[in-house]
Amino acid sequence: MAINHRMPRNEEGIATVVGVLKQQFGDRFQTGDAIREQHGHTTTWLENQWPDAVVFAQNKDEISEIIKVCATHKVPVIPFGTGTSLEGHVNAPAGGICIDVMQMDKILAVYPDDLSCVVQPGVTREQLNIHLRDQGLFFPIDPGANASLGGMAATCASGTNAVRYGTMKDNVMAVEVVMADGRVVRTAQRAKKSSAGYDLTRLMVGSEGTLGLFSEITLRLQGIPEAISSARCTFPSVDAACKTVMQVIQCGIPVARIELLDALQVKACNAYSKLDLPEEPLLLLEFHGSDAGVIEQAEMFGSIAEDQGGRDYTSTTSTEERNKLWQARHDAYWATLQLRPGAMGISTDVCVPISRLAECVSLTQERLKVDGFISPIVGHVGDGNFHCLLLIDKENEDEIMRAATFVSWLNNLAISLDGTCTGEHGIGQGKMPYLERELGSATVDAMIAIKGALDPDGIMNPGKVVRG
Amino acid sequence: MAINHRMPRNEEGIATVVGVLKQQFGDRFQTGDAIREQHGHTTTWLENQWPDAVVFAQNKDEISEIIKVCATHKVPVIPFGTGTSLEGHVNAPAGGICIDVMQMDKILAVYPDDLSCVVQPGVTREQLNIHLRDQGLFFPIDPGANASLGGMAATCASGTNAVRYGTMKDNVMAVEVVMADGRVVRTAQRAKKSSAGYDLTRLMVGSEGTLGLFSEITLRLQGIPEAISSARCTFPSVDAACKTVMQVIQCGIPVARIELLDALQVKACNAYSKLDLPEEPLLLLEFHGSDAGVIEQAEMFGSIAEDQGGRDYTSTTSTEERNKLWQARHDAYWATLQLRPGAMGISTDVCVPISRLAECVSLTQERLKVDGFISPIVGHVGDGNFHCLLLIDKENEDEIMRAATFVSWLNNLAISLDGTCTGEHGIGQGKMPYLERELGSATVDAMIAIKGALDPDGIMNPGKVVRG
Repeated sequence: MAINHRMPRNEEGIATVVGVLKQQFGDRFQTGDAIREQHGHTTTWLENQWPDAVVFAQNKDEISEIIKVCATHKVPVIPFGTGTSLEGHVNAPAGGICIDVMQMDKILAVYPDDLSCVVQPGVTREQLNIHLRDQGLFFPIDPGANASLGGMAATCASGTNAVRYGTMKDNVMAVEVVMADGRVVRTAQRAKKSSAGYDLTRLMVGSEGTLGLFSEITLRLQGIPEAISSARCTFPSVDAACKTVMQVIQCGIPVARIELLDALQVKACNAYSKLDLPEEPLLLLEFHGSDAGVIEQAEMFGSIAEDQGGRDYTSTTSTEERNKLWQARHDAYWATLQLRPGAMGISTDVCVPISRLAECVSLTQERLKVDGFISPIVGHVGDGNFHCLLLIDKENEDEIMRAATFVSWLNNLAISLDGTCTGEHGIGQGKMPYLERELGSATVDAMIAIKGALDPDGIMNPGKVVRG
Repeated sequence: MAINHRMPRNEEGIATVVGVLKQQFGDRFQTGDAIREQHGHTTTWLENQWPDAVVFAQNKDEISEIIKVCATHKVPVIPFGTGTSLEGHVNAPAGGICIDVMQMDKILAVYPDDLSCVVQPGVTREQLNIHLRDQGLFFPIDPGANASLGGMAATCASGTNAVRYGTMKDNVMAVEVVMADGRVVRTAQRAKKSSAGYDLTRLMVGSEGTLGLFSEITLRLQGIPEAISSARCTFPSVDAACKTVMQVIQCGIPVARIELLDALQVKACNAYSKLDLPEEPLLLLEFHGSDAGVIEQAEMFGSIAEDQGGRDYTSTTSTEERNKLWQARHDAYWATLQLRPGAMGISTDVCVPISRLAECVSLTQERLKVDGFISPIVGHVGDGNFHCLLLIDKENEDEIMRAATFVSWLNNLAISLDGTCTGEHGIGQGKMPYLERELGSATVDAMIAIKGALDPDGIMNPGKVVRG
């Protein structure tokens, strides 16, 4: 089952570091099985690989001290937030020390005049949005899970709002990073733009803890829009829905969310969330703007959808109805699991240019059918990004092998359509085989050179993204 | 006068490379004084430092070959587009070979369905926009000069439209880069977003030719808006204008342009462009959207401006009037030079959080007055970014020294206000002293480590951004 590999362990170094840190951190240093298993947690089919210990850091000086001790003895360091990443990012294939940052949960500053804030890495996105609400502000990135902002920055999370507000890459203005030698690097000041030197902010965002560990994150915020409305529309085919999305983007309608659920996903959501949506391909939308603006957007969308055979189009400004629909969307994962009780869900993620989306989704559906998998498709289709959630019997080796073959086929398909093997989940362990296929060996060699320059002993989250 | 330094020359290597490339490129390899001087051109007070030769490349294989020859003999390579950069980016402090990419001027592909295109580095932004017009598309980044897109990507250009559409960093989707060893790296495919590996695209954008030379650039495009309107409003003080800008941004009005001209700049523009604007601080605006949307934006702006004492507010959808106003804004540089005929203009650039903008501009005006400089202020104030253009007698050593002191003071002021020493011009040679002051030595050391990993012999545009 495992496509992740164990790596050689530095037993002597690990034993020394465990001794030193235990002394230093007392109760905040844990080596019990339960806590180690939880911190090697992975939400995919990858084998759990536990760290040797978990230490709960409370400030950047502590992170720096821990990393310095690990650097001295060449022992791996694995950052941990909420553990909701999907490609084995928090596994410890060579053992080592997991640094849990969830006690670093302070919102350090909010600058309403500048639409920015500074947070510690353990602050979650829901915690931040609750804090901001009274000031009329919000942080738009919503990957589904109530993830930590440190983890979201590390994996370059995005999700439903990215079509309008961008990904973490567009919304992290600066990070403070503890590097592999324990030094603290601040990548930018708080100006909205800068041309000062290499863009270390964006190099660090999406580096999955392999270049350093975030101790502070400066985020761009948005004003809560004057008006928000939601809408849904049913389509005769996934192809018609995808073509609608393409035209919406081309026309420059600034949709805040535009999500595709295929017929099987709608069926699952109906059952789980007690809805009665037509069990055909569905687009769920959200519009942000002025009162007049959201009405105009909804009308423009309606007219495009109608041309593509869209039916049952309804839009609403009711908060209650909107929340009900989006709750169902957010619960899609749990709804899907009910389609095959006891099964394991394997979520995989690709992203293609929007002109290739209809083709990519259609080919994927055909292949799923031929292979006999139960797997709904949901997607942040305004970005050309979609997910399959394969339901697998985790005791059935043959089924797992066939799922692995499917995932490989899908990644290669997306790459052949000028797309990427991951729009938002990241490389972690699970997508490492595809990175070179997507970008070529010269590009991966450049990444390895950067990793080698910033982490010469390879102690930062080893076995993820690139070797080295 | 020079704050740029000469670096040691590798005479033997240079002689060998000149011999080899002359043989290979014939007429496209030039060593005449005029052409070398033009290619060591710098638009600031920095001393011109000529390359030993200029070679006009026509494709990426040629760029790769040239760089391989230079790498073998450890000879500097300096990329050159239109030569409109402002901080000595194209100087050759250690001599070497200038690669002029202006014959690589093909638009290789336009993907209207995906709102993207692929260009060679010598395509200029005006050339691209003329090409795109019939397809209802445009590329929004407008730094003023009709720069090459390769140069704009290298310096992370932005300009008047950045407040709405972002900088080059937000609009370059992928680059193909010839690295210091001659290998060709493609940083991304064409999907709108990706979490696949380190973000080499954004590392390369703004790296000023010090990590590699762009051979292809994939750009994000925009649909030409249904409606465009422009507006202008006069304010009793720079402070009132800046406060208006801050509120406009906070309210989420999606202005496409919002430019500040101080009273002296308005005076210069009146004289040069034959206008009769009130000679007081002025905001120039542009709104993009639907017909109803631009009217709504203009009304919202008007109401905020009135609260801050704004006067003579006019908005128009007339293309002719709009072009006249924006032409005057684009000619501001030439208009300013007329304020002191024969003087040299020193353009400098800082950017601060928008909440500090009024303070930063006011302190700058005071200091300019105390120092007795003639220097209008213009700014892309929606981003907190502004420029001074000091008019200096280039024969007067004392004046030049005082200008250097002022520039240093201004950079330090911006940094002390949590801003950056360059919002859009880049570091080049001129801003190198400020980078460490802004970000600290650990950060600059990380940049030097990356430079060392990707260009171990330091041949790519040496003496710019960071040493190494």
